[in-house]
Amino acid sequence: MKRAKISSNVIRRLPRYLRKLDELTYDGTDRISSSELGRQMGLTPSQIRQDFSCFGEFGQQGYGYNIETLRKEISQILGMDRGYNIVLIGVGNLGHALIENFGFSGHGYNLLAAFDVKPALIGTQFAGVYINDMATLPDFLNSNKVDIVVLTVPRRAANSTAALITDCGVKAIWNFTNIELSINNPNVLVEDIHFSDSLLTLGYYLTDAASPGSDD
Amino acid sequence: MKRAKISSNVIRRLPRYLRKLDELTYDGTDRISSSELGRQMGLTPSQIRQDFSCFGEFGQQGYGYNIETLRKEISQILGMDRGYNIVLIGVGNLGHALIENFGFSGHGYNLLAAFDVKPALIGTQFAGVYINDMATLPDFLNSNKVDIVVLTVPRRAANSTAALITDCGVKAIWNFTNIELSINNPNVLVEDIHFSDSLLTLGYYLTDAASPGSDD
Repeated sequence: MKRAKISSNVIRRLPRYLRKLDELTYDGTDRISSSELGRQMGLTPSQIRQDFSCFGEFGQQGYGYNIETLRKEISQILGMDRGYNIVLIGVGNLGHALIENFGFSGHGYNLLAAFDVKPALIGTQFAGVYINDMATLPDFLNSNKVDIVVLTVPRRAANSTAALITDCGVKAIWNFTNIELSINNPNVLVEDIHFSDSLLTLGYYLTDAASPGSDD
Repeated sequence: MKRAKISSNVIRRLPRYLRKLDELTYDGTDRISSSELGRQMGLTPSQIRQDFSCFGEFGQQGYGYNIETLRKEISQILGMDRGYNIVLIGVGNLGHALIENFGFSGHGYNLLAAFDVKPALIGTQFAGVYINDMATLPDFLNSNKVDIVVLTVPRRAANSTAALITDCGVKAIWNFTNIELSINNPNVLVEDIHFSDSLLTLGYYLTDAASPGSDD
C-alpha cells in the first residue's frame, strides 16, 4: 500500500507509542482509551487519534485500543517484521556496548556480524556475534543482504567507511560517529545519534531554568 | 537577561550550528554568509537569520558571520561557559564508552566522578575518572555541586536511582536507560537518548523507501 507522506514528528512518535504499549503489556493491561493513553504520554487524545489515522483505523469507538493489536500494527509500520539484517562496524567501547546491551533481536533485527581493524579483536565474539576483519567487509556485503550498518568507528574513519559500505550497496546507516556523513548517493538513509547535541540541549534548558526571570 | 520562550526546534538546531562552525574552523574558514551556511546545512538563509534573531543580532549585513564570534555566542547560549559538573552512574559498557570517548571537557563540562555497585570496579579509574561505590553517592551529591547526572544504569535500577538523585537535589538527568523516568519533581529536567527510537525510525524510512509506489 502506498503511504501518504507523513510528517517526521508523527513517525518519531511511533517508537514512543511502542515503548508505552510494551510497558502497559508488562503491567497486564490489555486495552486503553485514547484519553488514558494521552494522559500517560502527555499527548491529547485527538493528537493520538490523528497520529494513528495516518495509517488506518486502529481503535474502536467506546472500546479504545486493544494493546496487542495496536502494538502489532505499529511494529509492522516500523518494519519490525521485515527481518532486517544489520552489521556493526567499529567494536570500541560503544560498539561493544551496543552488541552486548542493545536488543537488536527484540526489535526484530538480525545482527549478523561485527567488523574491526584491531587484530586482537578479530576472530573473537561478544554475545554470540563474531568480530571479523574489516578487510573482509566488502566480500561480506556482496554475499549477504545487509540492510543497515551501525557505524561506531572513530570519527576519522567515518566518511571513508561510509563511502565503502554505500559503494557495496548498503542503503541505511545508523550513525554514532558524531559527524555529518558526506554521502553522494541520495538514496542512502542516515539516522544520526549525536550524543553531544543531546547533552548540549540539556545544558541549554538547565541554563534557561537558572536564568533570572525564568518561568520555571 | 530574560529569554523569550524559544521553540524546541530552534534550540535543538543550536548544537548543529556549533558542530558546523567547529568544522568550518577546522577547515580554516573564519567567516561565512547565511546563504552559504544554509547551503551547507540544508537550511534556508532566512531560517538561519530567524534562529539567531531569537538570541540577538550576530551577523553583519554584507559581511556575514564571524565564525569565532558566532561560536562563542552559541556556546554561551547553550551554557557551555557555566562549568557544569557531571557525575556518571552505572559503569557498564555504555558508561565506560562515555567516560572514555565522549568529550565532556571539550563541551565545557566537568566529569567529576562515576559510581557503580560492582566491587571489582570500585576504586578503579577510566580516563582519569574514579569509580566510586554507589553507597557513597548521597554523601557525594550533598557535598558537591552536581548539575547533571548521566544515567547509564540497567533499566531495572533506573527509577530508583532517579529518585535517589533527585531527592539529593540533582536538577538534570541525561537518561540512557531507554525508559521514561517517573519523576515527581516538575523542576527536574530529563533529556532522553532512546537508541531504540532512533533505530526504529530508520527502520520505518527503510520500509517506506522499499514500499511500492514510494517517491524515493
